[in-house]
Amino acid sequence: MKLVTIDDVRAAAQRIRPHVVRTPLLRARWGDDERPLWIKPENLQPIGAFKVRGAFNAVSSVKDTASDVVAYSSGNHAQAVAYAAAEFGLRAHIVMPEETPNVKIQATRDLGARVVLSGAGQREIVADQVRADTDGVMIPPFDHPDVIAGQGTIGLEIAADLPSVRNVLIPVSGGGLASGIGTAIRALCPRARIYGVEPELAADTSQSLREGHRVDWTIEDRNRTIADGLRSQPSELTFAHLQHVLDGMITVTEAEIRSAVRELVYRARMVSEPSGAVTLAAYRQGATPPGETALILSGGNIEPRMLQQILAEDDHT
Amino acid sequence: MKLVTIDDVRAAAQRIRPHVVRTPLLRARWGDDERPLWIKPENLQPIGAFKVRGAFNAVSSVKDTASDVVAYSSGNHAQAVAYAAAEFGLRAHIVMPEETPNVKIQATRDLGARVVLSGAGQREIVADQVRADTDGVMIPPFDHPDVIAGQGTIGLEIAADLPSVRNVLIPVSGGGLASGIGTAIRALCPRARIYGVEPELAADTSQSLREGHRVDWTIEDRNRTIADGLRSQPSELTFAHLQHVLDGMITVTEAEIRSAVRELVYRARMVSEPSGAVTLAAYRQGATPPGETALILSGGNIEPRMLQQILAEDDHT
Repeated sequence: MKLVTIDDVRAAAQRIRPHVVRTPLLRARWGDDERPLWIKPENLQPIGAFKVRGAFNAVSSVKDTASDVVAYSSGNHAQAVAYAAAEFGLRAHIVMPEETPNVKIQATRDLGARVVLSGAGQREIVADQVRADTDGVMIPPFDHPDVIAGQGTIGLEIAADLPSVRNVLIPVSGGGLASGIGTAIRALCPRARIYGVEPELAADTSQSLREGHRVDWTIEDRNRTIADGLRSQPSELTFAHLQHVLDGMITVTEAEIRSAVRELVYRARMVSEPSGAVTLAAYRQGATPPGETALILSGGNIEPRMLQQILAEDDHT
Repeated sequence: MKLVTIDDVRAAAQRIRPHVVRTPLLRARWGDDERPLWIKPENLQPIGAFKVRGAFNAVSSVKDTASDVVAYSSGNHAQAVAYAAAEFGLRAHIVMPEETPNVKIQATRDLGARVVLSGAGQREIVADQVRADTDGVMIPPFDHPDVIAGQGTIGLEIAADLPSVRNVLIPVSGGGLASGIGTAIRALCPRARIYGVEPELAADTSQSLREGHRVDWTIEDRNRTIADGLRSQPSELTFAHLQHVLDGMITVTEAEIRSAVRELVYRARMVSEPSGAVTLAAYRQGATPPGETALILSGGNIEPRMLQQILAEDDHT
């Protein structure tokens, strides 16, 4: 299988530069002395998550040959594709499950996209139909080399800002983010160790990597975690990347995730969604080796009520 | 009176570059169409506020001739001076009022500073005594050209990132921030209009500029605002700058400030202290002219309980 290369990531960086935020790598002085802590705040991106990087790279590669793009997502990928399509003047058709919170449907429409609702288990069929009707190009959330290369631009920026990085912590869901960043860091910082992070309640990738092949967890099981962005599973393509680039996986509990969301608010002054805070939760377990540690805060889209609940669980002094 | 110049600001930028975050200017798509909105997130600085810029510039200019620095502050300036002194290997002595919350005292000590508590109305006397005892150099929070020039580096960065900026909104307390940024923007973006923003409950500078001379508001009056970082009044030096660089002042209500803190959390995914959110509150009044608008989010140090209270006042849909 052909894996994404550092050259693909570099090409993606050129392409997406005008459209995404070149996020700073922030030194967090409240980390351990042994493992100086750095945070890559992708919540600062337009639409509040790293997903714009992959979306812009993938949409820009079809913008001259297509007039419509199609995606299915109830989460950050939906808004990322809608946003990228609008920038390039393409029409976006986003298939979302019927149970998607209205605020997310409205946010996607506000970006100029057409939203098509689908019943339970129907979204792929509906998306295929939309694609056929519109002659549109499907932009997958992670199972595509252009998406992986786009997410990998985060790794380029970390390597540029902190060449001495020793540990990199990355949330894993479908695996596009870790595949891309891992590819860049492997190439540019060969001494760094690269860790994927999952909720214990959606630890399919941890098990899959241990067993050497993809293991399927039921969606009911994966839906148990509060980290709603980490409920997907790798594709064949991303799993091959993860086997190649990861040094290990770390799993975190729900309580650790909630605590990390609070810590990011009060100590980093940053709003993170639960999926974005798993890397800080993993860091706080203290299991990674000494050395400069960079963690990805992947996104900041959290429901107001959930944030209020988490902040009220005051373990912070 | 000799005012700070653009060359002073440029020299400060050179000096502080290794020590502060070069914050991005973030496009907020949820602003008005007529006045595209950009946010300068100084909450991303170490210690969570712009104050590090002025502190580093001032401390670095005495670091070769002094071994001790002294400051009095209960707020962000305390931690900024402690932080800058530690980076340069100087001893910091910070005079804080007895009633300072313990969390702020501890945070200042954690940065390696010695904290000296003072009784009501005694802080200047105590600070003078500490300075005499230690042969230290006083680093004032705003009444000093080096501090003004350091804060002005924010203006340099805005001019570089958004040369077409038409409105710049800056919180005003002692006036160091607005003096510095105003100096830089006046020189580099002569078509931009520069507005200071104050709480209605601490609008001494608005009145002073109207009357053409400094008007004193009692500290009891100024203490009424939730924006605890905006309770100081300009010095002769900063007032002269403000008269020179500001196009106008905007005042905001307490309710508008609280609402702006919420909006920054949910729409910009950023934690702001009340003082840092007054500029968004002013923007939302809609009184500034059309054109690209940059606002300073000056800091993110808010008490957990206050943040929870403000988020619970849910005007957000």
